[in-house]
Amino acid sequence: MMYHVIVAYDGSSYYGFQRQKKQLGIQEVIEKALKNMTKKNITIHSAGRTDKGVHAKGQSFHFETEFELDGETIKKALNKRLPETIRILSVKHANQKFHARHSAKSKVYTYRLSKIPLTAFEANYEVYLPNLDFKLMEEASQHFIGTHDFLGFCEKVEGKPTIKTIYSIDFKHTKHKVNVVFHGNSFLKYMVRSMMGTLIEIGQHKKEIDVITENLMSPNRKLAGKTAPAKGLYLTKIHY
Amino acid sequence: MMYHVIVAYDGSSYYGFQRQKKQLGIQEVIEKALKNMTKKNITIHSAGRTDKGVHAKGQSFHFETEFELDGETIKKALNKRLPETIRILSVKHANQKFHARHSAKSKVYTYRLSKIPLTAFEANYEVYLPNLDFKLMEEASQHFIGTHDFLGFCEKVEGKPTIKTIYSIDFKHTKHKVNVVFHGNSFLKYMVRSMMGTLIEIGQHKKEIDVITENLMSPNRKLAGKTAPAKGLYLTKIHY
Repeated sequence: MMYHVIVAYDGSSYYGFQRQKKQLGIQEVIEKALKNMTKKNITIHSAGRTDKGVHAKGQSFHFETEFELDGETIKKALNKRLPETIRILSVKHANQKFHARHSAKSKVYTYRLSKIPLTAFEANYEVYLPNLDFKLMEEASQHFIGTHDFLGFCEKVEGKPTIKTIYSIDFKHTKHKVNVVFHGNSFLKYMVRSMMGTLIEIGQHKKEIDVITENLMSPNRKLAGKTAPAKGLYLTKIHY
Repeated sequence: MMYHVIVAYDGSSYYGFQRQKKQLGIQEVIEKALKNMTKKNITIHSAGRTDKGVHAKGQSFHFETEFELDGETIKKALNKRLPETIRILSVKHANQKFHARHSAKSKVYTYRLSKIPLTAFEANYEVYLPNLDFKLMEEASQHFIGTHDFLGFCEKVEGKPTIKTIYSIDFKHTKHKVNVVFHGNSFLKYMVRSMMGTLIEIGQHKKEIDVITENLMSPNRKLAGKTAPAKGLYLTKIHY
């Protein structure tokens, strides 16, 4: 039986999603809860890794086992065994061919910025930067839309193609904050944080808008802004 | 020059307020920031310790040094040097005789409960308990008001008197949550969490209301409920 699970987590408590040798990754915590529940070793496969400090409101993973239980029962049993900073949102039976990463059609990430100083309780969940020109950043962001080689906006991983498609980048404002929502077919390592870091430096008038098109045409990571902090980033949704 | 500082912190990132031998306490982090700023070793004295996981929205401390700077300048310089999970809210010149603990007239603590399951992002900041009878808890809480021996609702510390006065306990509701606000002249180790734990067991119909008066009249910690989790507790304000 194949299961598709949607999970949210507070990334500030863990060393990223992937199983680690020395530090506690979210994958390990979930696999331990599954083992405690089923008495079997089960490996989960996520739609993508998230780095240390990155949050998720809608990460997906699949796992396969012999047992058959309804989704709601598994969800409750897992949430009882997991720390409260990791919450299973849904568990559904899936097609045998379903694969959380390979079957994904597109992904949504959100980046949270604040114009006003953060409280101690917002510190792990947003990034404060004064004097950002949000209007200019929004205008600049539209240059990422479309299919491009994002080699200049990522950390290259050997053997992984760097041509990706961005469908939309939306700026959702409240009075003092902005959520920047990235929707694309898939994303490379550090890609959202590298695009965001570039937009931030444009918003600070440290870079010109043209640097985006230039870096998409002739990729050179030195043209990108400093990779934006992990704590502002949320994996929002995987579309299948 | 004597300084009075008000500070907020996210307790989930630290091992309590007090300087620790092996783990990182909030006091040590603030003293390091002061040393970095002044190049001098300065000891800070807080209004009270908070345990590991307990938060503060209005902790107070004092420190004394030779240098004289205005409060706003010190506040900015410290916040620049502190992690964002510790925020200085104000720095003011104080009377030479001011002492953050001895001069305190009363203290306010808040405890946050939720009737509905927490999201991953609320996990470190509230306590979820289903099926609590809030009305009954509110009624029961009023039995704590007044001057009593709270020996049965604390962890006894040798040499510290256990007679304390509670001025008020207010239940502030939103739709699915409640903030329980305790105002008293001072509080013993684990006292708020022990009172709260007792109220919780009354709200779960595991204990009778009478247990409060009984435990105040003839103190016996076995009569109190299980000490409530640290993460729901906030040091809200110190009155001088």
